[in-house]
Amino acid sequence: MCAPAGFRASGVSAGIKKSGALDLALLVSDGPASVAGTFTTNKGAAAPVRVSRERVARGAARGVVANSGCANSFTGERGIGDAQAMSAEAAKLLEVSAEEMLVCSTGLIGSFLPMDKVKSGIASAFEKLSNDDDAVAGAIMTTDTRPKRSAVRHADGWSVGGIAKGAAMISPNMATMLAFITTDAAVATGPLHEALSQAVGVSFNSIVIDGDRSTNDTCLCFANGASGVEPSQADLVTALEIVCRSLAEQIVADGEGATKFIRVSVRGAATKGDAEKAARQIAESALVKTAMFGGDANWGRVAAAIGQSGVEADYNRLLISIGGFKLLSYGEPAGESALEEARAGLKEDPEPAIECELGVGGESAEIVTTDLSLEYVRLNAAYE
Amino acid sequence: MCAPAGFRASGVSAGIKKSGALDLALLVSDGPASVAGTFTTNKGAAAPVRVSRERVARGAARGVVANSGCANSFTGERGIGDAQAMSAEAAKLLEVSAEEMLVCSTGLIGSFLPMDKVKSGIASAFEKLSNDDDAVAGAIMTTDTRPKRSAVRHADGWSVGGIAKGAAMISPNMATMLAFITTDAAVATGPLHEALSQAVGVSFNSIVIDGDRSTNDTCLCFANGASGVEPSQADLVTALEIVCRSLAEQIVADGEGATKFIRVSVRGAATKGDAEKAARQIAESALVKTAMFGGDANWGRVAAAIGQSGVEADYNRLLISIGGFKLLSYGEPAGESALEEARAGLKEDPEPAIECELGVGGESAEIVTTDLSLEYVRLNAAYE
Repeated sequence: MCAPAGFRASGVSAGIKKSGALDLALLVSDGPASVAGTFTTNKGAAAPVRVSRERVARGAARGVVANSGCANSFTGERGIGDAQAMSAEAAKLLEVSAEEMLVCSTGLIGSFLPMDKVKSGIASAFEKLSNDDDAVAGAIMTTDTRPKRSAVRHADGWSVGGIAKGAAMISPNMATMLAFITTDAAVATGPLHEALSQAVGVSFNSIVIDGDRSTNDTCLCFANGASGVEPSQADLVTALEIVCRSLAEQIVADGEGATKFIRVSVRGAATKGDAEKAARQIAESALVKTAMFGGDANWGRVAAAIGQSGVEADYNRLLISIGGFKLLSYGEPAGESALEEARAGLKEDPEPAIECELGVGGESAEIVTTDLSLEYVRLNAAYE
Repeated sequence: MCAPAGFRASGVSAGIKKSGALDLALLVSDGPASVAGTFTTNKGAAAPVRVSRERVARGAARGVVANSGCANSFTGERGIGDAQAMSAEAAKLLEVSAEEMLVCSTGLIGSFLPMDKVKSGIASAFEKLSNDDDAVAGAIMTTDTRPKRSAVRHADGWSVGGIAKGAAMISPNMATMLAFITTDAAVATGPLHEALSQAVGVSFNSIVIDGDRSTNDTCLCFANGASGVEPSQADLVTALEIVCRSLAEQIVADGEGATKFIRVSVRGAATKGDAEKAARQIAESALVKTAMFGGDANWGRVAAAIGQSGVEADYNRLLISIGGFKLLSYGEPAGESALEEARAGLKEDPEPAIECELGVGGESAEIVTTDLSLEYVRLNAAYE
């Protein structure tokens, strides 16, 4: 995330997490920056989301202060005050206006931020600001087992970098997917927002772990122009897509209890919306996900999910492949020996694709997801 | 199901299931009967659903022949022919027209009915028709661990009886919820259909196990008038509701791997639709269900599910109780000691209620569901 020029970051342990792990992150642009953001659609949006959403609408910001271990969600008026105080503390040290600092939280829903710890954490994070983004990526993790980073450099001399966290749409007692993207390209707010929306659509909004949408999801993108280069919109979208896709796929690969990384693609749909709806229904089906965990090439569950999605499909022309094995061709099921072969292959395949052709049009969509494992249930049935 | 006069039934082993368990069921009214039915909304409806749906529209039928072990789903034109032949075989023996016999299947998706076995099974089921409904309830089971039956007798001298099967919306490699209801009340098709729709709405359509909707779901209701009594519509609805609710709750109690029977109720919603949407989002949340399995009084996941549902709610007036413990009162979280107490209570409670008050209106809804357990994943990750 500090690959682009003119950004500094840090991560420290402020004692918000009982474990003593890194839990407070600071990211700052040295100069003014355009900002764009996308936020959770959950109607019970957390306090930091409400505060940051309003500030992002201004179009300019200097950075973000974030904590893990406490989501500051369902915390009412006091939570709003805490989020404002948290960003004000960082703004004061950075000598910028409070309005220019954004704020994010991730962790347990329904408890208040320990403001003393937060404030002293911000002070020590301020002291540690540097070009190294190792600690900042660690400081936003909850049940993640590893930090998620990505960067890309354009030949014209500008770059895009990013970090993200997330291991379930809501993790055990935790909430949130967070992603912070930076670029030293010179981009105005309008085009930046447009490019980010496009990139988020094909990345973070195209992954599913458990279908639960957090109250804290936030993706922020800062553009400070430090490279002096003004990229074309197409180049900007491409670069953002590369970084966002990489981060989104790292989130899925680190999905809670996941043993399989599954790419669900639906082709031949009448509309783009239909393709997305069918792909999402397959990716969210508990029965498809448990079958994948068991290495069962159960195309019937995929077919039933397509039917459940309600989208237009020609069931006499339906094709379904799992892990590269054609199991339904033009409505005709493969025989038992083909199924046996597919099961054997699937057991050994850590990244099986589920591919469907609806046979009624030319639109397609892709969703990346995980299987539903015993470990997912174990993790989420235990508190703390 | 044979409590009402003038109905006979039987169940036999036709060899469709490899295990040799009961797998062919026959239900017959001695005289003509009005019929009503509700069917899966899955667009990939199985062959027997397509055949029976058309025949139910005629308003009169004599009975139904059903098999378990093979769903006759995603079987194309050949599947339609098999479903027609299956009902024709039963109709021939009963000396009624083929159009008067309905047909249902439940089991593995994507394989063809073994028609020789089906036909000889029907012959032996015909020989065994009796007033005893023990065997017929067993013959429609797939992963069910016990048959589901219910009956109610009205003081005026008529009764309603029913059997059902289902252990997941789609069971391991299996599909279907089936329910067959009989009454000896004299009811015309129109009022029967209306009463059944009402009863199904508050029973079978208000339960969730895994959110997966089968291609074979069918609920049929036969009224043969053998009691000579014509009940009021209100009495008919009440009697059907009692039987359907009992059967639906038996399905949930026998849910795959279920360790908890959970009643989710949402009150104070602006509209009935909002109340249902919020209740369903809670009941289908993998994170709420795993928390219940673990005995974790995680009200934050319930609150997040309400937010995700997108319905109108006043988050400053939100109330959430789990297992009778008030965990969020008017937006104010209960303290850690109350949470500890709730967790201890929840661990011992096999039937915890999740109760929510949205604080914006007077509408309410209830959905009955199960937890998401390790055993559910184990069952559904294994084929056969």
